[in-house]
Amino acid sequence: MEKLTIIKVGGKIVEEDDELNRLLADFSRIEGHKILVHGGGRLATELATQLGIESRMIDGRRITDAATLKVVTMVYAGWVNKMIVARLQAYSINAVGLTGADMNVIRSVKRPVREIDYGFAGDVEEVDARQLGMLLLQDMVPVMAPLTHDKQGNLLNTNADTIAAEIAKALATLFDVTLVYCFEKSGVLRDETDYQSIIPEIDRDLYISYREQGVIKGGMIPKLENAFRAIDAGVKRVVITQASALLNDTGTIIQNRF
Amino acid sequence: MEKLTIIKVGGKIVEEDDELNRLLADFSRIEGHKILVHGGGRLATELATQLGIESRMIDGRRITDAATLKVVTMVYAGWVNKMIVARLQAYSINAVGLTGADMNVIRSVKRPVREIDYGFAGDVEEVDARQLGMLLLQDMVPVMAPLTHDKQGNLLNTNADTIAAEIAKALATLFDVTLVYCFEKSGVLRDETDYQSIIPEIDRDLYISYREQGVIKGGMIPKLENAFRAIDAGVKRVVITQASALLNDTGTIIQNRF
Repeated sequence: MEKLTIIKVGGKIVEEDDELNRLLADFSRIEGHKILVHGGGRLATELATQLGIESRMIDGRRITDAATLKVVTMVYAGWVNKMIVARLQAYSINAVGLTGADMNVIRSVKRPVREIDYGFAGDVEEVDARQLGMLLLQDMVPVMAPLTHDKQGNLLNTNADTIAAEIAKALATLFDVTLVYCFEKSGVLRDETDYQSIIPEIDRDLYISYREQGVIKGGMIPKLENAFRAIDAGVKRVVITQASALLNDTGTIIQNRF
Repeated sequence: MEKLTIIKVGGKIVEEDDELNRLLADFSRIEGHKILVHGGGRLATELATQLGIESRMIDGRRITDAATLKVVTMVYAGWVNKMIVARLQAYSINAVGLTGADMNVIRSVKRPVREIDYGFAGDVEEVDARQLGMLLLQDMVPVMAPLTHDKQGNLLNTNADTIAAEIAKALATLFDVTLVYCFEKSGVLRDETDYQSIIPEIDRDLYISYREQGVIKGGMIPKLENAFRAIDAGVKRVVITQASALLNDTGTIIQNRF
């Protein structure tokens, strides 16, 4: 099977022009098929503040009312997405910026209201792997903004980590997929205060024992849960690393042994 | 050759939810291949005002400094484009929202500074007809935001009428193209105060004589010049009409007699 690398970069990197340019230069040098999934969180919060719209977050998830949906669509699918596409085109990467609504590549359902009403937030239902695969085989590079749709006319704000994992899972039947989560640290750390204490490889048993010891906690838990689910669905390898180390062989790796 | 209808709608229609929904319902019923090109002018001015960014226009053209480029990219490529795409998907139209940077479909040059510095404004240089044609043959419906790029990493604000005409011209070798300009009036009028005085058909001779008589003036002149250039380049038919009359056989038509 042909190789496919899916890189997810967080909201922070898109705020720093120099860092973003370094990332895009590195990304353009990755061989084989590739997809970039981006966030854009703080820029949305910034614009919302400027427009007098209150940003409400619960456990790191944004409550997306109608005004907020407009803001995140403008920031994620508009400015961040198209700026990245234009810059990648300068590297002769044939980028195409997409939300899940475009070509109906990711259909979601509006998250059901239980204790919390997340508003226009989407839970992914279906990824059109055939459509994305066709773009990749035409040497296009999809750049995914963290928005999906419900096929009933509504855009839905959707977690970028989840989008990356769902795309990776859907494409695992067609490609040899590596999923790379870039975040602020150089990998999963044994000691949060020591950036050198990267855990080079982790499997589910080791993860469970680290979690029980409290070594792995907070935001790393859903990230690793996403990673193991991707591996279970046939993704070959998940790497958790720093954007600046994209081309290095560092970070924490989770391998599919089957 | 297979039929292709390219519809250009102005900024005004995207501001009125009911009108926009009617347009999208009508658009979804057009048979054969189709492309929607949209503006979004006043919404950009509105957002710019809210953000304290001054909107400067010269002869109806926006002066696009860096802050304004960000605003128009957010509004055109973000909110307006993706909202239209999501709504078309609800009609089972496989819409894909694009700027000229996506798939490198429209490359421009930054308008040279002569008397006026238009800033990040693009003059179209090249449309990738092959790429757009491929999407159309896969039954996709491109929804074009009025932004292009210079292939050097910069997005450029680009007139939507021009984008529609350039796409029509480039695709005229591959399809039997009808280009429809929707604007506020029901067609080119003999008497501006009488909406019933539509000129049903116009050719270059008639246009010149009407222009000399002062019957055709103002913003209609560049629209018709665009239309005649499109016809010269092989476009089969240009229609100037009202968005609400999209499915009627009304408006002013310019036919290619060759």
